[in-house]
Amino acid sequence: MSSTVDYTVPTETTENYGVLLNKKEDLQIVQIAVPTPKSGEVQVQVKATGICGSDVHLWKHGEIGIFPVTQPQLLGHESAGVVTAVADDVQDLKVGDRVAIEAGIPCSQCDQCMQGRYHLCPEVVFKSTPPHHGLLAKYITHPARWLHRIPDSLTYEQGALLEPLSVAIAAIDRVGVTFGRSLLITGAGPIGLMVLAVAKATGVSPVVITDVQASRLQYAKAMGADFVYQVDPKRGDVDVAKDIRQLLGGGAEYSLECTGIESSFRAAIMATKDAGTCCLVGVGKNDQLLPVNNFAMREVDIRGLFRYHHTYPRAIALMASGKLNVDHLITHKYDFMDALKAFDTASDYSTGAIKVQILN
Amino acid sequence: MSSTVDYTVPTETTENYGVLLNKKEDLQIVQIAVPTPKSGEVQVQVKATGICGSDVHLWKHGEIGIFPVTQPQLLGHESAGVVTAVADDVQDLKVGDRVAIEAGIPCSQCDQCMQGRYHLCPEVVFKSTPPHHGLLAKYITHPARWLHRIPDSLTYEQGALLEPLSVAIAAIDRVGVTFGRSLLITGAGPIGLMVLAVAKATGVSPVVITDVQASRLQYAKAMGADFVYQVDPKRGDVDVAKDIRQLLGGGAEYSLECTGIESSFRAAIMATKDAGTCCLVGVGKNDQLLPVNNFAMREVDIRGLFRYHHTYPRAIALMASGKLNVDHLITHKYDFMDALKAFDTASDYSTGAIKVQILN
Amino acid sequence: MSSTVDYTVPTETTENYGVLLNKKEDLQIVQIAVPTPKSGEVQVQVKATGICGSDVHLWKHGEIGIFPVTQPQLLGHESAGVVTAVADDVQDLKVGDRVAIEAGIPCSQCDQCMQGRYHLCPEVVFKSTPPHHGLLAKYITHPARWLHRIPDSLTYEQGALLEPLSVAIAAIDRVGVTFGRSLLITGAGPIGLMVLAVAKATGVSPVVITDVQASRLQYAKAMGADFVYQVDPKRGDVDVAKDIRQLLGGGAEYSLECTGIESSFRAAIMATKDAGTCCLVGVGKNDQLLPVNNFAMREVDIRGLFRYHHTYPRAIALMASGKLNVDHLITHKYDFMDALKAFDTASDYSTGAIKVQILN
Amino acid sequence: MSSTVDYTVPTETTENYGVLLNKKEDLQIVQIAVPTPKSGEVQVQVKATGICGSDVHLWKHGEIGIFPVTQPQLLGHESAGVVTAVADDVQDLKVGDRVAIEAGIPCSQCDQCMQGRYHLCPEVVFKSTPPHHGLLAKYITHPARWLHRIPDSLTYEQGALLEPLSVAIAAIDRVGVTFGRSLLITGAGPIGLMVLAVAKATGVSPVVITDVQASRLQYAKAMGADFVYQVDPKRGDVDVAKDIRQLLGGGAEYSLECTGIESSFRAAIMATKDAGTCCLVGVGKNDQLLPVNNFAMREVDIRGLFRYHHTYPRAIALMASGKLNVDHLITHKYDFMDALKAFDTASDYSTGAIKVQILN
Repeated sequence: MSSTVDYTVPTETTENYGVLLNKKEDLQIVQIAVPTPKSGEVQVQVKATGICGSDVHLWKHGEIGIFPVTQPQLLGHESAGVVTAVADDVQDLKVGDRVAIEAGIPCSQCDQCMQGRYHLCPEVVFKSTPPHHGLLAKYITHPARWLHRIPDSLTYEQGALLEPLSVAIAAIDRVGVTFGRSLLITGAGPIGLMVLAVAKATGVSPVVITDVQASRLQYAKAMGADFVYQVDPKRGDVDVAKDIRQLLGGGAEYSLECTGIESSFRAAIMATKDAGTCCLVGVGKNDQLLPVNNFAMREVDIRGLFRYHHTYPRAIALMASGKLNVDHLITHKYDFMDALKAFDTASDYSTGAIKVQILN
Repeated sequence: MSSTVDYTVPTETTENYGVLLNKKEDLQIVQIAVPTPKSGEVQVQVKATGICGSDVHLWKHGEIGIFPVTQPQLLGHESAGVVTAVADDVQDLKVGDRVAIEAGIPCSQCDQCMQGRYHLCPEVVFKSTPPHHGLLAKYITHPARWLHRIPDSLTYEQGALLEPLSVAIAAIDRVGVTFGRSLLITGAGPIGLMVLAVAKATGVSPVVITDVQASRLQYAKAMGADFVYQVDPKRGDVDVAKDIRQLLGGGAEYSLECTGIESSFRAAIMATKDAGTCCLVGVGKNDQLLPVNNFAMREVDIRGLFRYHHTYPRAIALMASGKLNVDHLITHKYDFMDALKAFDTASDYSTGAIKVQILN
Repeated sequence: MSSTVDYTVPTETTENYGVLLNKKEDLQIVQIAVPTPKSGEVQVQVKATGICGSDVHLWKHGEIGIFPVTQPQLLGHESAGVVTAVADDVQDLKVGDRVAIEAGIPCSQCDQCMQGRYHLCPEVVFKSTPPHHGLLAKYITHPARWLHRIPDSLTYEQGALLEPLSVAIAAIDRVGVTFGRSLLITGAGPIGLMVLAVAKATGVSPVVITDVQASRLQYAKAMGADFVYQVDPKRGDVDVAKDIRQLLGGGAEYSLECTGIESSFRAAIMATKDAGTCCLVGVGKNDQLLPVNNFAMREVDIRGLFRYHHTYPRAIALMASGKLNVDHLITHKYDFMDALKAFDTASDYSTGAIKVQILN
Repeated sequence: MSSTVDYTVPTETTENYGVLLNKKEDLQIVQIAVPTPKSGEVQVQVKATGICGSDVHLWKHGEIGIFPVTQPQLLGHESAGVVTAVADDVQDLKVGDRVAIEAGIPCSQCDQCMQGRYHLCPEVVFKSTPPHHGLLAKYITHPARWLHRIPDSLTYEQGALLEPLSVAIAAIDRVGVTFGRSLLITGAGPIGLMVLAVAKATGVSPVVITDVQASRLQYAKAMGADFVYQVDPKRGDVDVAKDIRQLLGGGAEYSLECTGIESSFRAAIMATKDAGTCCLVGVGKNDQLLPVNNFAMREVDIRGLFRYHHTYPRAIALMASGKLNVDHLITHKYDFMDALKAFDTASDYSTGAIKVQILN
């Protein structure tokens, strides 16, 4: 993948723009102040930012899960860029360093943080989750601790992909699937496909992926899925599970549910082998009717995933190893000043967009 | 606890009786043949057998879970006794050995068995689960491999308690709670109380236990529960969870749901700490409406328990250590020929029965 | 155990004393400034401090492991006290709170810290490890984050015992031994006995403990050791291992080596069951001749322990539960101004001292 | 890789030959009886067998580790073939099925077996380990339970490679290294290279491999090693460890020692990151001088590997996935009747042999 963005570091920074969500359905590009890094912080010229489904949801619905938009805020949390200034006390980074931005900033003091689960920190500041500003600006500041240097062999676009890749890695981590084990992925959307890419790059085998759309399954097949299965919404979850079991010659040792749809979760649970693990990655209804005796009597563990933690170094290592090719998931790119068009594309299913990125 | 049963080994065995369930609501004591041990087997004079809720359910409803009673069968799977004969090829046991009987006989060859999860063996013969005969007879045969020698310091009644104790140990194992960690037990019935006993004997602390009945909670308090909480059925699951959290000064690190009631499972999930584990031990409805986002976003693991495995040696060690006192859970004892009265008592809540045993 | 120390909070603090190690074999009580808490810190009147073997070693040899004494410093790291002042930004603690002091202060930012292993933080400041001052003063300051409130039911002496108890808990954690599993403890010194106490309080069974001194083994037996074994130094490690295996009827599932002596480590390894775990807790020679094929071919894991992490809340819960009685390990108590006598006692084997504490 | 062996099943089997080790340095091809499968067994025409270093060692030294050759026996345990007859009670396999042979036959009843660790079964019959016959014959019998059907896409030579591949997978399992984690492999012999192949196929990154021979390192580099390091035997273990750390920009998270040489094990331990894991795969001296404080104070876990378990299905899945290319490790092939030449080649370092196979 060739990148057309400019790698040179600007010598002086006088103006800044951001993609601001004023309120539900009111998104605009506005001029904002150039931020100055405080103690421990770094100023980053953001070079590439992917649009996440949650960005679109915030824009269209004015909330995401339990977080309502309460004040104007920038969107975006899938970003990479170049360091343009550092606070006096920052030693690990210098101007010109190319970095991926880990969007969540935990407190590093609470029990969850000290137990190694900083993603569950109750005090975490996650950029773009209300009421915090996101990363969709030409210049932002961020703590040096939560920036990750990327090698020259990676483009900024790839650097920005490290965030959704982190979700996929966290999903794989959460169930613990490793090489030579079978995996069911329900849903061939951006996250499902990213999980597939990681699974294939790490020898997980066989992998079966499901979707309602044939085109997505073709895409998944081309990416190396061992089996694809088109879900007929009229077919019951019990039968879907049976079909999947037949494809695999038995249940899946691990399942990752990436649609957020109740019937899909139910089928995933029932298609998981005794003593296997089924994890919910997609987000859907708060309450869902689950086949409790089915999973309990067979000791299938049920888990959920919240964001990611400790993934960036491994995501970078994996991407730099050349084993993982996910560049093709970036289907559309827009200049920063065309950010609103980028959001239009990302929110329109007919575009076939998987990942839309905004470049600067 | 002093035991009044006869420890002497009978020199000749000419007659045998069993507690036979002909069909739903048709239970009787019948004369049966004295069984001869086949290769690898041992003949055991059963000395004490506890009545499990599932025995009562089989009797009253003619089925348990997915297993309907299809032919006349003996009940009972909580038993201990003395070896009265051994097959020629049995070397590890001899006549006179006092043993607890592990009721499930796995195939020892399939993947689940070879992976160390013999409780999930699809070919397991679990005594008293239809269509297999149970252990409620004066003499039974059983593979030597699935008998566990008990020390002289344990009575046969205690030996028979090792089976429900195994369930409690398996429940503790399933969530992995250890000393100095907090545990929520919902339900102060026989299993909930057995779990409480194990938790207290192994330093789990603090332990909160819930029930709708004040008398059961008093019993649990006397057994050492740090906190008891009486559930008001009119109070919603969200509020119950809040109350429990307040008692503990935060959520429970681990929860064991021992009622099988949906609202109780929901409250247990919501009362579990972020990154904690909540396991269903009680059996209830097949489909239950669960607070999916609540557990998924907080990465609370949901598990179920199926019987037990690798518990007997530890159950014996724990009971023999003197740390665990569960004898008081045996509230009623009956002679073998009064077995039908024993079932009446076990099925009648007004008796206050926790564990009813049939002695021989 | 009744405590005679004064629980009242001093209203004004004008003078302070510390137990200062000037250099090897040069220990004295000196007047020092009363420290003022900085941001995030708390001032603590230290009420009880235990003397650790490492304190004695620093005094007698001017170094501990790889840490030489390079400048005058206070000793002591097993302390509890009462909060006498707090910095403006401290919210979790207030004057009058009774606290145990966790002596190590990690950076909370590095990879080890963020992975939940703050005890391995390369930037940790561990009080009393050169060149850092210890806690043996009438008043010290410490970050609020690393103080643990203790309930009124615990004395300050018990609060000071939480530190060696933490080592024992960390040792148990490191091998993962739980109830109903067998444990070998080699060495019945202060740490070995503390491990024994935790093992007994948490249902680990059976426990065998070894030592060369019969008197220590008697003490261990009285504390509840299932088996004791007196090591004859003339007997080879292979034979010692055989003897221990015979006592247990097979190898120990878990072993904790608490002497630091090579032959003892070798015997512990050989006495551990196939697929078991043997952890070195005692500190000895840098290079040791280990029976490599013995542990490798039997897949016995070999581990070491470095201090502790995440132990204080559980240590407090366990001690407050009443299950654990370790007060009797405090064999001698001295007033602060008699601290030098306390060190004399602690360094003299003929006193039979297990744990010597200095009270204030 | 194209295979020239004949896939057709012989219709009648009248003669059989085996590679028999009479005693130390006395190896010959002899005619033997055609074995008849007993209950649960299958007759297999062996099509390909690799020569292991242990086969050569048995031939040259008359013993391997603690197992002396006590009677004439066949060698060989890395084999694949085709089913030519089945016992009446075998249902899972039929004549014509192509299978890899798992050489160890555990008892399936003991504690180790039932705990999922059948490789540690004290009653295991491992073919070619004295006094048991090996698989180097034209026809052998074996329990159906320990044969693994291979897909048509795999050749018999690949089927025979599944055994050393199993060792590599077991080594990876034993330390738990997964994608995006760093791995040090000391020794680029057959096992080290096989480990490297698995590591590369499963996204482990970066991987550094060491050896004393430059040619082996070139081979490893071509296979995808991220870093290679030539060990200068005159350089001390401390310095070697430092060099490796520098290559990785810090210690290796996981290390696999594949030489069996003490200095190499020492360097591997010291090159492992704090809280990492170092596993001995190579077999060397019984007693070795290890840097105990180095691993203990840094909580680096030390492990050993014994054979493998539960690897075949995953080895087959991984090989069939096309991700893993290890065919090139087969450097020499011989017809069955040239087996003695094959052993000559395998035992002569100057041949550059990595894996020598005997085809039938």
